[in-house]
Amino acid sequence: MPFDPATPPSFAAIEAAASRLAGLAVRTPLLEAPLLSRQLGRPVYVKPETLQRTGSFKFRGAYNRLSLIPQAQRAAGVVALSSGNHAQGVALAAQMLGMPAVIIMPSDAPATKIDGTRALGASVVLYDRRNDDRDALGAGLARERGATLVHPFDDAGVIAGQGTVGLEIAEDCLRLGLRPDAVVTCCGGGGLATGIALALEAKLPGVALYTAEPAGFDDMARSLAAGHSHNNAPDAASFCDAILTPRPGVITLPVLMRLGVRGVAVSDAEVAVGMRAAFTHFKLVTEPGGCVALSAVLANRLPAGTGPLVCVLSGGNVDPAVFAAVLSPANQ
Amino acid sequence: MPFDPATPPSFAAIEAAASRLAGLAVRTPLLEAPLLSRQLGRPVYVKPETLQRTGSFKFRGAYNRLSLIPQAQRAAGVVALSSGNHAQGVALAAQMLGMPAVIIMPSDAPATKIDGTRALGASVVLYDRRNDDRDALGAGLARERGATLVHPFDDAGVIAGQGTVGLEIAEDCLRLGLRPDAVVTCCGGGGLATGIALALEAKLPGVALYTAEPAGFDDMARSLAAGHSHNNAPDAASFCDAILTPRPGVITLPVLMRLGVRGVAVSDAEVAVGMRAAFTHFKLVTEPGGCVALSAVLANRLPAGTGPLVCVLSGGNVDPAVFAAVLSPANQ
Repeated sequence: MPFDPATPPSFAAIEAAASRLAGLAVRTPLLEAPLLSRQLGRPVYVKPETLQRTGSFKFRGAYNRLSLIPQAQRAAGVVALSSGNHAQGVALAAQMLGMPAVIIMPSDAPATKIDGTRALGASVVLYDRRNDDRDALGAGLARERGATLVHPFDDAGVIAGQGTVGLEIAEDCLRLGLRPDAVVTCCGGGGLATGIALALEAKLPGVALYTAEPAGFDDMARSLAAGHSHNNAPDAASFCDAILTPRPGVITLPVLMRLGVRGVAVSDAEVAVGMRAAFTHFKLVTEPGGCVALSAVLANRLPAGTGPLVCVLSGGNVDPAVFAAVLSPANQ
Repeated sequence: MPFDPATPPSFAAIEAAASRLAGLAVRTPLLEAPLLSRQLGRPVYVKPETLQRTGSFKFRGAYNRLSLIPQAQRAAGVVALSSGNHAQGVALAAQMLGMPAVIIMPSDAPATKIDGTRALGASVVLYDRRNDDRDALGAGLARERGATLVHPFDDAGVIAGQGTVGLEIAEDCLRLGLRPDAVVTCCGGGGLATGIALALEAKLPGVALYTAEPAGFDDMARSLAAGHSHNNAPDAASFCDAILTPRPGVITLPVLMRLGVRGVAVSDAEVAVGMRAAFTHFKLVTEPGGCVALSAVLANRLPAGTGPLVCVLSGGNVDPAVFAAVLSPANQ
């Protein structure tokens, strides 16, 4: 059966992604900190995808998707739209597979992400987030070059790759004899959440999944509650640059609805509290958008209980000045 | 054969420590960052013991050593001397094994370490680094309570526990088909270095080990070069609080000499460069004393070459203000 990027992946596709990524992606551990768990009255585990190659989980989906491109189409390369994490994941995957990559990034993306993408050998095209139509830009460039357009979340190959995060969480929970009350993950368009949901359905059925989003960008939470797609207000603002998508994906939302996933939201100030907790308890650098899941737990957005929680820390690509400001006593 | 803390551990003792720690200590991965490796012209791997329980490798040695205390002596508890990482390792291990712990810490230890030790249930006794004799204080307290004094490095049970770091490095190198030109580790009294050296001797014979120390505290480097123990000048200063020991251990130095280990040193400014590299490339929070090995590689203290290097990042227990200052552009 040929690969169809528009059909949600099967669990077998997630397992195939895990085989492709074995030895190439970092097999991130589950970490627990006794003092944090005590503070929260329940065991809280984090899955530090900050340690993943290129500093976020995005390498998983990118490498898996690029591996599915037939040999004959590889020389024309790939085009991707990204604020920076998908960009770096695609850039590294393309470099490893010997393919050229063009990445379309907003001109106000963090410098660390633009520099990182270029350093991995990709060509970067900057656009104005307010005035340019990035989808038209991407489609045009891909057509022009005969390249494969790699969507950051509405793509079955990408979702299957991100699903390996959920597969590893399930494997580790089963090994540790741990049945979490819930798994919590950050959410932009929903690619990571969908991959995790499908892996949990197969390996830890009945375990609840929550998406966590920045306040004002809780399109997924509202869409899941309403049962159909909601947009964010165009004037919303947040420092969680990685996950500021305007609306849920068209592939992702129906899967998350079918699996009963629910969504919560946190303010930027609450995100900063989570980033400080990740610093203190896990010695991990998280970027704002990568820390919303842990932040939601710290802000008591999850149903009360004493059972274990697992939070995905999805990325750590943050400019030093932003991270230093989050650590500063003036902001606490 | 009864356990003798004064006889260097065998490789079998390191393997036994690994069995005791399985499922209790974090099995830390080896991480590599393509851009850092490219910058340095060789593959550079880090072993992030910052992710270890209590934020440093010290939990390994502490838990292993406390496990070797006979049941009849456990109720009297343990006494330990530490600037903060051994303190937290011993405190958590004692808590897990149901033993009381008294930790003797310098009054100028980082707040994060003093607080962390108390939060783990240990009693903390502060002393004045300049005027008090901490060894006499520790021996007196242990005698008074009938407690076991757990030395931070001159103890075979502690060294065997730390040796599991080297065992895991060797396992991962063998699995990845990687033969490093060298392994580099930070060094205070030499417990970690000695454990790693013994593990490498058994599992990766011929691979060079380097100790890295702060300039002014390079007693181990000078002792290894001279063939006998050298002290540091009493007025030396460094922000690498974790590894400011006055002289090499009496158990550790002879083992490191026998195995041909060599030592290098780096300035505090060079340590800060390493901490920023760990932030940028690995999204890891390192404390100054936990980053000297990577810093030594970045400062070109290792022999030139193109083969892989493995650097132990030994701890991440740093106060937020210190870490923010290291990230600040004013300090670059």
